[in-house]
Amino acid sequence: MSQREFELIRRLFRERVQAADDLPVGIGDDGAVLRVEAGELVWAIDTINAGVHFPTDAPAHAVGHRVLAVNLSDLVAMGATARWALLSLSLDETPDEKWLEGFCAGFFELAERAGVVLGGGDMTRGPLAASVSLLGRAGQAVVTRRGARLGDWLLVSGTLGDARAGLDIALGDDHVINEHERSLLARYLYPEPRLGLSEPLARYATSAIDLSDGLCADLGHLLRESGVGAELALDQLPLSPALRAHAAEEAPELALAGGDDYEILCTAGPDQVEALESSAQAAGLTLQRIGRIVEQRGLQIRNAEGERVSPPTGFSHFGETDA
Amino acid sequence: MSQREFELIRRLFRERVQAADDLPVGIGDDGAVLRVEAGELVWAIDTINAGVHFPTDAPAHAVGHRVLAVNLSDLVAMGATARWALLSLSLDETPDEKWLEGFCAGFFELAERAGVVLGGGDMTRGPLAASVSLLGRAGQAVVTRRGARLGDWLLVSGTLGDARAGLDIALGDDHVINEHERSLLARYLYPEPRLGLSEPLARYATSAIDLSDGLCADLGHLLRESGVGAELALDQLPLSPALRAHAAEEAPELALAGGDDYEILCTAGPDQVEALESSAQAAGLTLQRIGRIVEQRGLQIRNAEGERVSPPTGFSHFGETDA
Repeated sequence: MSQREFELIRRLFRERVQAADDLPVGIGDDGAVLRVEAGELVWAIDTINAGVHFPTDAPAHAVGHRVLAVNLSDLVAMGATARWALLSLSLDETPDEKWLEGFCAGFFELAERAGVVLGGGDMTRGPLAASVSLLGRAGQAVVTRRGARLGDWLLVSGTLGDARAGLDIALGDDHVINEHERSLLARYLYPEPRLGLSEPLARYATSAIDLSDGLCADLGHLLRESGVGAELALDQLPLSPALRAHAAEEAPELALAGGDDYEILCTAGPDQVEALESSAQAAGLTLQRIGRIVEQRGLQIRNAEGERVSPPTGFSHFGETDA
Repeated sequence: MSQREFELIRRLFRERVQAADDLPVGIGDDGAVLRVEAGELVWAIDTINAGVHFPTDAPAHAVGHRVLAVNLSDLVAMGATARWALLSLSLDETPDEKWLEGFCAGFFELAERAGVVLGGGDMTRGPLAASVSLLGRAGQAVVTRRGARLGDWLLVSGTLGDARAGLDIALGDDHVINEHERSLLARYLYPEPRLGLSEPLARYATSAIDLSDGLCADLGHLLRESGVGAELALDQLPLSPALRAHAAEEAPELALAGGDDYEILCTAGPDQVEALESSAQAAGLTLQRIGRIVEQRGLQIRNAEGERVSPPTGFSHFGETDA
C-alpha cells in the first residue's frame, strides 16, 4: 500500500483502538492476542457483500454498522456477550477517505455501545465487501437452535417485516418519503442487535436463532435442528405502526417471509416464559408470544379465525444461509 | 436456500466435522462454542478474492487450501498453534457441486494436517471470495512485529520469489510447461504454511512476520513496528533451483519484491540464532540468514561485491495490507 493509505488506516483504525487487559496485542500485527479466562467462548463470522446484503450506494456509516450488527445478533442468539472483533474489508479501488471515515464511524459507534474492541484484520482489493469475526463470552448457559421442546412457547423480539419494506423503499425510485417510510428505511439500514436479550436468553430460553433470512426460513432451521414442529398465530405477529400504515395488506406476508429483521426468535418452557418476558422487559425489550412448539413436524400457521394459512413460498432473494 | 443446497452443505461440511472436547457446538448454529483454558489466544482473519488473490479459474482445491494456508501462516508468524477455524464463503451463483467438493477437499486436507477443526461459518451470494478466521493457542511467548533489536540476525524460511514466478506462469498463455515451471506454479497455487516454525519462533525469535506482500514490503512493516533498520545481503537470499532455471536474471528482484511466498521472516539475537536454526531444522525446515538489524532506519541492500543496490520500487500489484 502507499504511504497515504498506510497513514489513512493508521488514523482511522489504529488510533481509535484502546489497549485493553484482555487484548494485549491488537491492530498492526499478523494476529491479535486475546487474554481469556477458562470457560466457553462463542464465535461467529458473517460477510456482507455490496449489491447482495446492502445496496452498493448505501451510506458507508450504515455498512460499518451492519457488518458488526449482524454478527452481534448471532452472539445474542447464543446467549453470549461479544467482546472482540476482527474486520476484513475488501475495497474495489483505492480507499475513498470519506467512505472509510463513514464506515469507521458506523462500526466504532456500535462497537463502543456493545463493549466490543477491534483486534485488527485486513484490508484488501476486491468487490466491496466486509467480513467480521466476533468472539465473546458464553452466558450462564449456551443457547442453541437444538433445544426447543414440546409445549414451549415461541417468542419474537421487536417487530417483523419492517426491514423488508425498508429494503423495497431503498431500492425504489421515490425521492420523497414520508415519516413511516423513513422509519422502515432506518430499520433496514440500521439493524439493531438486541444486546439486552443475551442474559435473559441464557437464563430462561430453551433455544434461539436470529432472524436474517425471514421468520419462516429461520424458524424452519430451528425446528429442524430441534426435531420438532410449530404452530404460529398469524394475528400475534408483532407489526409496527409504520409497516401497518405503509403496507397494510402485505404486512403479514412481509412479517413471515421478509429478511433482515435481525430480531431474535426463541423458545421457552411454560414455567420459564414469564421470567423470560420480565427479564427482557427489564432490559427495555419486548418479546411477543407468537406460537407454540408441537409434536407434528413442520410449520402450521393459523389466522385469527383459527383457519390454516399456507406458509409463504421459500423467500430467498438473498439466498443466504449458514454453513 | 433450497433443500438441495442444504443437503449439499450438510454432506460437504457438517458430516466431515468431528465433535471435539474443545468445540462443544460446531457447524449449524448461529455461532460456534469453544472451550478454552485460561491464557492467551492468537486470532487472525484473511479474505481471498477471485481475480485478486487467486485467478478466477484456479482449481477449487487450491482455493480451499489457500484461504486456510494464508491464515495458518499468520498464526505461525505469531508463534502460535492454530486450533479452530470459521469459514465464510461467497459464491456468485448456485453452488457448483464439483467446485465445492474440490474446495472442501483442499480445505479439509490442510485442516487435518494442521490439527484445525472447523466450527462453522456462513455461505452467501456474492463475487467469489472466501474468508477464514483462525484462532489458536499462543506458544511459550507471543512473537510480534515489534521485537527486532539492534544486532539481531534477519532470517527467512524456504525460498523466495517462486510464488510470483508461478503467478506469472498461471496468468500466461503457455499450455506446455516444463518441470521447473510446474514446481513454481505449485508454489503459487499451494502456499505451504511453515507450521513447524511456531515453536522455534516462540522460543527463540525476537520478531516475525509472514511474507504475503513480498520481502521488502513486509520487512518494511517489521522495521517500522520495531523502530529499527536492516541491512540485507542480496547474495544470501534463498533461491530455488527452479527459479534460477526459470528466471536467472530476474530472480533476485522476484525474491525481493514478489508476493505470495508465505515464508516466515524473523529476527533472533546473536546468542539465540543458532538455537533457532537447529530447532527449525529439527522440524524439517530451513532458515537462511539474510541480513542484520541496524540502527539506521530504512533498508539497505548490498550485493555480493558489497555495493549498495536500490530496493525495488513498491511492489503492490495486489495492493494488500493489514488493517
